[in-house]
Amino acid sequence: MAEARKIFLQVAMKVEAEPLLSALVAVRIAPDWCPGLPFEFYQANHRGLEITFGLPGNDPVHSFDSIGSVPAGLLAYLGITHLQPDLVLNAGTCGGFHSLHHRISEVFIGTRFVAFHHRRSSIPAMQNYGFGKYPVANSAELRNALKLSEGIVSSGDALDYSDDDRVYMKQSGATLKEMEAAAIGWACHFFGTPLLLVKSVTDLVDHPDDTASQFLRNYARAADTLKIEVLRILDYLAENSSDPVWNHSAISDT
Amino acid sequence: MAEARKIFLQVAMKVEAEPLLSALVAVRIAPDWCPGLPFEFYQANHRGLEITFGLPGNDPVHSFDSIGSVPAGLLAYLGITHLQPDLVLNAGTCGGFHSLHHRISEVFIGTRFVAFHHRRSSIPAMQNYGFGKYPVANSAELRNALKLSEGIVSSGDALDYSDDDRVYMKQSGATLKEMEAAAIGWACHFFGTPLLLVKSVTDLVDHPDDTASQFLRNYARAADTLKIEVLRILDYLAENSSDPVWNHSAISDT
Repeated sequence: MAEARKIFLQVAMKVEAEPLLSALVAVRIAPDWCPGLPFEFYQANHRGLEITFGLPGNDPVHSFDSIGSVPAGLLAYLGITHLQPDLVLNAGTCGGFHSLHHRISEVFIGTRFVAFHHRRSSIPAMQNYGFGKYPVANSAELRNALKLSEGIVSSGDALDYSDDDRVYMKQSGATLKEMEAAAIGWACHFFGTPLLLVKSVTDLVDHPDDTASQFLRNYARAADTLKIEVLRILDYLAENSSDPVWNHSAISDT
Repeated sequence: MAEARKIFLQVAMKVEAEPLLSALVAVRIAPDWCPGLPFEFYQANHRGLEITFGLPGNDPVHSFDSIGSVPAGLLAYLGITHLQPDLVLNAGTCGGFHSLHHRISEVFIGTRFVAFHHRRSSIPAMQNYGFGKYPVANSAELRNALKLSEGIVSSGDALDYSDDDRVYMKQSGATLKEMEAAAIGWACHFFGTPLLLVKSVTDLVDHPDDTASQFLRNYARAADTLKIEVLRILDYLAENSSDPVWNHSAISDT
């Protein structure tokens, strides 16, 4: 019998993770390889998949989920080096675009690459690094089988969407805005670990209502559809051990 | 005889580090605790101080120094947990303000706290986390002895300075803009490791010339004064083993 496939399932906010943790009856574990950090880990087995959840936990100084790229990069690196997962699955909420007909709580798979939109530089040699395009898993068959939409995910450390963000997302071609995926992609790339991005829309960044009020109004609904689709994806992964999503592709999914 | 004091000396760009690496005759080492990463480490002994340089190295995808907060946070965390330094010294270049009479290649010590200016959020509960104010070392005696200026350091992942950055730096009270220190402060805080920030001005962010052209024109000069002042600081630290800079202060230097 083949060894069980291991998935590191990284989620930034506890409220995004809770529906999934409950549905998978995940149990909290306390690994010894991340001393000093508020990071939280939970373990679940689902149809032969060994799933370890990684959450950045509560910032002890500011009593808020440790969202954003810095904790995400560290968490992904520690998860990958210590657990050696076959796949990193980053599930979370995101901003979409009214102009692209995205709908609140619609769930997307990140394709092509994952980029940053907040690392602005007018020094040409630095610009490509700033975007930091890193590969994502080849999800074509999975998306087709599960009838899931695709989008290009871009990360920035601000919740609020700015004119600068707009310019940089337009330049990279990104269509979904969130705060962690590119840092996770950076860490995955060093190890050739495939990264599957699953993002549920909480807000439309080009909507007249500001991001914050939309986010607060919609995150519970978005977390619920995120749970539903992640469970479908896990079922699919359990049944399709030779799907291309498991293979690291040095170049991005196109 | 007391054990030698250990300093983890973190620098983002190779060009910023090179004058110091040469002056201290630092030797490259290859520790086994950061597999897969382009991070570079160098070791030097200086008047009884054990100094390990940590540089994030060249991003293999984009052939550029791995600047910014994500590599900085990971590098600081790995350096602290594996080397257990008595002090983290983050040396680098920064942007200053013409309106505050900062001069190109002037060297400052970071005081009060270190914050981010790019993690914007209009959700009140998230705002404090966004600024992420973390402690810095109590440098009052050191600054006084060496006649060094002080400033409040703020980090953001963009080289270019924006109107949003201006608003957020004004709100936190920060006076020096760079790209890594707050992520290092975040990592230091978990372990109570004192963080000494030494920053040399490459550009004036409120000057009509753009940041990029000033940076390219001035970084060699700024790296040279940075080297001179870091060497003076190391001499001082070697001679003053009971200076308050070595003590972690749970609250920031005020």
